[in-house]
Amino acid sequence: MSTIELVSEHGCYGGVQRFYKHMSRETRGTMKFSVYVPPQARAAKVPVLYYLSGLTCTEETFPIKAHAQQGASELGLMLVAPDTSPREPRLPGDADSWDFGQGAGFYVDATQAPWSTNYRMYSYVTRELPEVVAANLPANTEATGIFGHSMGGHGALTLALRNPTLYKSVSAFAPIAAPMQCPWGKKAFTNYLGENREAWREHDATELVARQPFPGPILIDQGTSDQFLVEQLLPEKFRAAAAQSGQKLNLRMQPGYDHGYYFMQTFMADHLRHHAAALKK
Amino acid sequence: MSTIELVSEHGCYGGVQRFYKHMSRETRGTMKFSVYVPPQARAAKVPVLYYLSGLTCTEETFPIKAHAQQGASELGLMLVAPDTSPREPRLPGDADSWDFGQGAGFYVDATQAPWSTNYRMYSYVTRELPEVVAANLPANTEATGIFGHSMGGHGALTLALRNPTLYKSVSAFAPIAAPMQCPWGKKAFTNYLGENREAWREHDATELVARQPFPGPILIDQGTSDQFLVEQLLPEKFRAAAAQSGQKLNLRMQPGYDHGYYFMQTFMADHLRHHAAALKK
Repeated sequence: MSTIELVSEHGCYGGVQRFYKHMSRETRGTMKFSVYVPPQARAAKVPVLYYLSGLTCTEETFPIKAHAQQGASELGLMLVAPDTSPREPRLPGDADSWDFGQGAGFYVDATQAPWSTNYRMYSYVTRELPEVVAANLPANTEATGIFGHSMGGHGALTLALRNPTLYKSVSAFAPIAAPMQCPWGKKAFTNYLGENREAWREHDATELVARQPFPGPILIDQGTSDQFLVEQLLPEKFRAAAAQSGQKLNLRMQPGYDHGYYFMQTFMADHLRHHAAALKK
Repeated sequence: MSTIELVSEHGCYGGVQRFYKHMSRETRGTMKFSVYVPPQARAAKVPVLYYLSGLTCTEETFPIKAHAQQGASELGLMLVAPDTSPREPRLPGDADSWDFGQGAGFYVDATQAPWSTNYRMYSYVTRELPEVVAANLPANTEATGIFGHSMGGHGALTLALRNPTLYKSVSAFAPIAAPMQCPWGKKAFTNYLGENREAWREHDATELVARQPFPGPILIDQGTSDQFLVEQLLPEKFRAAAAQSGQKLNLRMQPGYDHGYYFMQTFMADHLRHHAAALKK
């Protein structure tokens, strides 16, 4: 495994907020990620909670905007937030859209040229990054959870549903809950995965949860004033599929909240407690 | 008074985070500011706490990075954060430095051309903005406090020391505590106020506190790993002057913390409680 390089670190709520970069085997370029290490990690390895960001975000968005460090410090959780796509090498057209390419990896392994060589965010997040974390940080990798927002909520749900032994807990804020049925998902899946919709089903949370529930409860918060709710997010599709398979789901519609980080920070403590309840058993 | 325009609003911790703009009489251009309105304001007017940002910041920096809304929601405080300088009209050289001109108004009324016509942040913050807030928001203006960071810590201390009947509480994070004695302050004061150092004394917290203490206690947090501590911030000068005049001061040196918002968010709840104790009497 390649070595990781500490870019910066900052004292925060008795622990430390760090930024790292490393050469990625999966994406074949430099990848960055952020880690909040809580004070409890000085005494023993702590549970690790991955956060996947939404469209246009980077590894900095979560630590700056989500206000999660306070709760993570109190509960003793490590927070790991990767970037949302490879950033090098640059590919033709990778910056033409804000909802595809750079900043929009959708947490899949692309099968279509030219994306398939580098856009391997599924394998990066589920395999490579956990190895990097285990080798370099005081993480109890037996206690791993995952959550995310919007595109990253899609990522958290699909990665957890496909890897229920790796992830012991999952939650999401305003996830793209049925990407095969919305414009963002159709655009990304067509370009990354090709025209064959059968291949898309492994990356659609609604399809996955209908087939096999996650072993633990799923918490989802969704603002009712979210500008993307009706066209892009479709949590009702996920709710119906969860009911079909018996998935335990707490989908909370939050009146007056929109799609942004002011919404997310409001309910952050609830999500951290949801994960701590599963990870600190 | 000119009308204010709501730029955007976002549900946040049961209240609402808003962004406004308005035509300013003092700066003769459009000014922006942010307001967090806590849920308690639906029932009655609430105390109002002004936050002054540091170099390069805007009215967005505080609501995005400082993690103050949670505590303000619990305590029932309104948070008002103005921009750090006029943004129009543009003046020759206003973007040549990151520590002077745009984003660096230093909370003074400039007396030197070409700055004196628009760079009137002292009068904007102490007179015009409180009028705008009183006319448009559910603020109990009898209960007004002020705090800030770095250049904004300088602003909070000097504005409070000069206006002890307007402000009932004051605190600062890593303030420029003796600007007449540091490079940032000398550069700004020379350009905004001219070569006569006598005029600078009204804008130097150390000079002011030596002359006349603030009626209430002052809370200051300062990280010991702050890269600007030794050359620019000089809290020990302020401590010595406060001791001279009998100012009640809680200057807390925080080991391992730097100059940024990860430091500030860590101690934000303490500062909000400090203000609430004075403003909710």
